[in-house]
Amino acid sequence: MEPNHHDWLQNAIAEAEKGRDEGGIPIGSVLINPQGHVVARGHNLRVQTDDPTAHAEVVCIRNAGRRRDWRSLTLVSTLSPCIMCSGTAMLFRIPHVVIGENTTFVGAEEIMRWRGVQLTILHDQRCIDLMRTFIAEKPDLWNEDIGA
Amino acid sequence: MEPNHHDWLQNAIAEAEKGRDEGGIPIGSVLINPQGHVVARGHNLRVQTDDPTAHAEVVCIRNAGRRRDWRSLTLVSTLSPCIMCSGTAMLFRIPHVVIGENTTFVGAEEIMRWRGVQLTILHDQRCIDLMRTFIAEKPDLWNEDIGA
Repeated sequence: MEPNHHDWLQNAIAEAEKGRDEGGIPIGSVLINPQGHVVARGHNLRVQTDDPTAHAEVVCIRNAGRRRDWRSLTLVSTLSPCIMCSGTAMLFRIPHVVIGENTTFVGAEEIMRWRGVQLTILHDQRCIDLMRTFIAEKPDLWNEDIGA
Repeated sequence: MEPNHHDWLQNAIAEAEKGRDEGGIPIGSVLINPQGHVVARGHNLRVQTDDPTAHAEVVCIRNAGRRRDWRSLTLVSTLSPCIMCSGTAMLFRIPHVVIGENTTFVGAEEIMRWRGVQLTILHDQRCIDLMRTFIAEKPDLWNEDIGA
C-alpha cells in the first residue's frame, strides 16, 4: 500500500483543531503503524494541564503506552518537532517523521537527519494557517511553549 | 554560596530510591534554583504509570509546572540524561546539568555540550550501584526504557 501522508496528516490536523477548540496550542500528532492505521493520537496540553512537557508529540507517544514496536511506526505532526519531541522520537528509534509544516517553526530537524531519521515535509497550508493565527493571537503563550 | 553538587545529588538519589522501592526504575532528578533550593523533584514512573515518556528528568520538569525561570535552574539527575531528557532540558534552555554517573549509560551528553549546556559529572558510586543492581535484575525493563 502506498502511504498516504495527507490522510495521516488529516488525523494530526484534527488533533490540532481539538487543541485549538479547547483554548490550547493548536499542534497535533498521530502515530501510524505499518498497515497505515492510527495507533495513538495527541495534541498539545500545556494550557489544559499546566504540563510544560505536554507537546503534541510527547502526549501522542505517552498515549501509545508501553510497547516495543516503535521502530515500525511513523510519527506525524502538524509542526516541525522541537528538540524535546525530536529527542523523544529518537529515544524510541521511530524511523520516520512526517511534518505538516516547518515554515512557522523549525525544530530539531538537523539532529534527526544526522541520526538517520527520515523526514517528510508536507508544507501544508492548513497547518501554516493554524500556527500563524495562533502566534498572532497569543505570542507570549507560543514563546513559553518553545522556551523562548 | 558555593554550589554543593553532592547535596543536590543526594536529593536526586532519594528520588531514585523512592522509584526503586515502588518497583520502578531507580533514576531520580531534581531542579535547583539559584539559591540552591530544590524547586521540583521526579523519578522514573514508566512501571508505575505505564507512561513511556516518564523518565525522571521529564517527570521532574513536568512537576516544575509552567514557569519562565528555566534559564536560572540546574537539572540534577542520578544518570546521564537520554536524548529525550536532554532535549527537554535544551528546549527550556536549562544551562547546567549535574549528572550522578555516566558509567552505566551515556545519554546525549555530546549534543548538550554542542548546544552549550554545562555538564558536571560526579561519578558517584551510589548512583552506579543503583543502576548496576537494577540492570542485572531487570535487563529487559532497562532495554525497554532506553528504546533498545
